[in-house]
Amino acid sequence: METEVAGWTDQEQGLAQAIFAIALARDLECLISDLRSKSEHLGSAEDIWKMHDFLSIRRHEIEGRFDFRLPGLLFVFADFVKDGLVSLEELEGFSDDKLAKIRAMSRM
Amino acid sequence: METEVAGWTDQEQGLAQAIFAIALARDLECLISDLRSKSEHLGSAEDIWKMHDFLSIRRHEIEGRFDFRLPGLLFVFADFVKDGLVSLEELEGFSDDKLAKIRAMSRM
Repeated sequence: METEVAGWTDQEQGLAQAIFAIALARDLECLISDLRSKSEHLGSAEDIWKMHDFLSIRRHEIEGRFDFRLPGLLFVFADFVKDGLVSLEELEGFSDDKLAKIRAMSRM
Repeated sequence: METEVAGWTDQEQGLAQAIFAIALARDLECLISDLRSKSEHLGSAEDIWKMHDFLSIRRHEIEGRFDFRLPGLLFVFADFVKDGLVSLEELEGFSDDKLAKIRAMSRM
């Protein structure tokens, strides 16, 4: 039985969760690579505390962003596109009106 | 003019500051080496947040410990000895009673 929730079909919800997992994996990969590069160049207390501040901000961002909820999901996907975590092509299973909104918001 | 403050001679205050700088440099070197090793082994979000928690605790510890004030300094030096940041031999410019207290507290 098709159970549409807040305008999202079953199929779209499944795709949305898959996209979420992909975006999170890419964001973490990027963060790990940043941390490795930063840790290579640590030379002073200031460098270490800067790395700590950077990591605090990224953690806050990632933990806030990757909380999967249907309301607001189009904004989150637009952010993923803007940040280069997913491409518009990867979102092609969504309805045309959702894609148009994501595309428009990703340019803001 | 010799200006003893709270039982610390000028010479002891100078030595205390030098020991502080040495202990801080060693502690930071150790932390940098830990961060490099941890960042090499990052594989998941959990690993990254564990590294963040570790760094938060170390920052709190280091920022608290390396605030130079004469009161309580013997405790701080005993901690340095206990943590292997400085050796008792490096503290030999202090008076015998200070050394005895540091030695005793470092074994607690």
